[in-house]
Amino acid sequence: MKSDLARIVGDEHVLDPTAQYLDDASAASGVHGRADVVVRPGSADEVSAVVRWCYEHDVAIVPRGGGTGYAGGAVPLDGGVVLALERLRAIRSFDPLLWRMEVEAGVLTSTVARLARENGLLYPPDPGAAESSHIGGNAATNAGGPHAFKYGVTGAWITGLEAVVAPGELVQLGGPVRKDVAGYDLRSLLIGSEGTLGIITAVWLRLMPAPETALPVAAAFTDARAGAAAIEAVMASGVIPAAIEYLDAGSVDAAAATFPAPLDDERRFLLLVEADGTRAGAEHAVGELREALGDAVVHAPVTPADVRAFWEWRSAVSHAVTATRGGKLSEDVAVPVDRLAEAIEETVAIGERHGLEACSWGHAGDGNLHSTFLLSPGDEDERERADAAAHDLFAMAIRLGGTVSGEHGIGLLKNGQLRHQWAPAAVALHRSVKEALDPKGLLNPGKKLP
Amino acid sequence: MKSDLARIVGDEHVLDPTAQYLDDASAASGVHGRADVVVRPGSADEVSAVVRWCYEHDVAIVPRGGGTGYAGGAVPLDGGVVLALERLRAIRSFDPLLWRMEVEAGVLTSTVARLARENGLLYPPDPGAAESSHIGGNAATNAGGPHAFKYGVTGAWITGLEAVVAPGELVQLGGPVRKDVAGYDLRSLLIGSEGTLGIITAVWLRLMPAPETALPVAAAFTDARAGAAAIEAVMASGVIPAAIEYLDAGSVDAAAATFPAPLDDERRFLLLVEADGTRAGAEHAVGELREALGDAVVHAPVTPADVRAFWEWRSAVSHAVTATRGGKLSEDVAVPVDRLAEAIEETVAIGERHGLEACSWGHAGDGNLHSTFLLSPGDEDERERADAAAHDLFAMAIRLGGTVSGEHGIGLLKNGQLRHQWAPAAVALHRSVKEALDPKGLLNPGKKLP
Repeated sequence: MKSDLARIVGDEHVLDPTAQYLDDASAASGVHGRADVVVRPGSADEVSAVVRWCYEHDVAIVPRGGGTGYAGGAVPLDGGVVLALERLRAIRSFDPLLWRMEVEAGVLTSTVARLARENGLLYPPDPGAAESSHIGGNAATNAGGPHAFKYGVTGAWITGLEAVVAPGELVQLGGPVRKDVAGYDLRSLLIGSEGTLGIITAVWLRLMPAPETALPVAAAFTDARAGAAAIEAVMASGVIPAAIEYLDAGSVDAAAATFPAPLDDERRFLLLVEADGTRAGAEHAVGELREALGDAVVHAPVTPADVRAFWEWRSAVSHAVTATRGGKLSEDVAVPVDRLAEAIEETVAIGERHGLEACSWGHAGDGNLHSTFLLSPGDEDERERADAAAHDLFAMAIRLGGTVSGEHGIGLLKNGQLRHQWAPAAVALHRSVKEALDPKGLLNPGKKLP
Repeated sequence: MKSDLARIVGDEHVLDPTAQYLDDASAASGVHGRADVVVRPGSADEVSAVVRWCYEHDVAIVPRGGGTGYAGGAVPLDGGVVLALERLRAIRSFDPLLWRMEVEAGVLTSTVARLARENGLLYPPDPGAAESSHIGGNAATNAGGPHAFKYGVTGAWITGLEAVVAPGELVQLGGPVRKDVAGYDLRSLLIGSEGTLGIITAVWLRLMPAPETALPVAAAFTDARAGAAAIEAVMASGVIPAAIEYLDAGSVDAAAATFPAPLDDERRFLLLVEADGTRAGAEHAVGELREALGDAVVHAPVTPADVRAFWEWRSAVSHAVTATRGGKLSEDVAVPVDRLAEAIEETVAIGERHGLEACSWGHAGDGNLHSTFLLSPGDEDERERADAAAHDLFAMAIRLGGTVSGEHGIGLLKNGQLRHQWAPAAVALHRSVKEALDPKGLLNPGKKLP
């Protein structure tokens, strides 16, 4: 195996597997991978040749981006080849005046965002680990983030994909053209498919002129019900907020110490709402939002430094929650926005039923909760109860008309959930599509589908 | 056949085929359908039962919405059942405060738009025949329109589908939840698949608060090159226009008489650019657009009545071009926006090569041309030359990195083009997906795929 693969990518790019290539962010949940070899192709053609070799030799292929996923999607289960895309780092083209960019899969999300920003543009998707996640991984998982409320998830910004499909063909699905109904939307089919239908090697991105200003407002409420009522008031204000985020009481308790404004003990449910646009436009919109939020407003940063500090604090909420007990099990269910308060309350109730402290925060406008159970590292009994609690959480999301994953994906960890969320006929469709595109079942086996 | 189907939908909803159910807008190109029977189910369950019966009896199924398509997608080729969705007209739910609506496939696009508007909301997609097209047909073709530049095509506003798939299963793909990465994006796979993978029976739509104001500006240039340079200036202005439309000289000649402002003879290339938002925001943005367009601005309506008249004039351009000679062949190729001027010029040159008068207009910001050859009705020789010219047009679009269809779809009329645009491996993927979802090939046979 090694010598064949070395002939394709060069000796120095065929490596023995190390944790760096076997684990992702799910390692915190005790998930560790096992592979035979790590291959680091240097071009899309080499990816194609590696896939072709694997497909001929019945060897499993686990594509790997930045390894920042929470669902174990990049973790090899049972040997095979880890196909690391980190050397595909070319910015193939960038036309700021035309609001578009073509980049290879291994380019960091933060690089895309920075290039756009330096040219007066915005690449809106802002998933949590942008400093280390790859744009290809973002595409493969259809990553979200706070600003997906106004701007949509990663897929909304991809006009075309280059990908390797079985048994090793390099194909182009879409391109720089912004509208195309000539074929089936295979681009969207691969986006979010977590490497189980093909290996994304490059993406064409569309961009937009950067808003001049973004002005967030934080408002504090007594509980989730009051917060949810405020969300409806915000949605009735006529403004389209750039983001509507929330933290419930448990999350606020974990993160309040570093919040840039005082928070009182009676109002521990936080809404973070942002308006963006021209300076005048954003200021006008923030006025409308303040009216909708009334006297609940507790903080409204204005200077760029304060706004940045505000969002850095928001990004650190997950770490602050972990720090409470040293460990956590966090899921990313989503529900219709009118069921959000129910889902937030029930997260805590599910925790109580399993003897676990629970909290949640997340993308309120999209009904997307990061429902979390606090854990002491190494406590196996607690871990098992958390797994059981997570199952109750998934059942709740489905009962409320939602999904077991709003943005992290199914990967390995939620693999059994698909058949609870989808009717048998819909699961059968998934199975048919998988068999059509990966007849040997070698593309990221054991992920996404049961 | 009739008695079996009558048992499902009732006697009065099994009809002998008439032109109303056999032709669509492609009838102007001489395309007429042939079917055995028309069935008008009254519910999604009846659609399911009809499809199940057809699948069991190897009978082709041609789903039909408003019949406004230009590609012959709703035209039955060789017998079978026309499945008309016009009785599926329920607004299943409408939550204006939550910016969402669930409607059945047969609801008119204009009804969706009106309901949204009456509640302070906007359903942005604005395909040409909104007064008669169905929302289900819009979804099945992923219909576009002028405002797709800022707001995206139909699919961008669909969070979930209800559809009947082979051999007659009613499935739900997505729903009211705004983010969902639990499964494959089968929703997007069905959107734009022109009824060849399943029959859409209902859609969940997301909506947005309506902009307070929309202010269009028209600017006139000497030729397409100057107009294209102005598009780049507009894109560099920092404003995201709601629409960037164009008319070339031939189209202006056809439509100038009713244009609400005088146009001089030297500047016959028109750009129509619109800014929307709050009144102050739109006024500010229009100021930026005017600066980018310089002294080319010829018209800038401000009152709602004048703005409406302006867009009504724009909608009538296609009819005005037809009126020039009594007939036309119009295609909807799209190219990367930096190749737009080339595509506009080449449309005219292709016409000349085939002895045909040609012009184009369309969605400039999306690089989407309605490239058109003028015809005299009944002149068969001209019609044949126009068909040959259309083939050159498709080849040009592909050579420029574009697509043979930006928004009308492939249907019947462009059916052979797929293999020119897509590489063999990509065509094979299409074929695999079709076989996976429609193993008997009974769903709208002869459409989309060769």
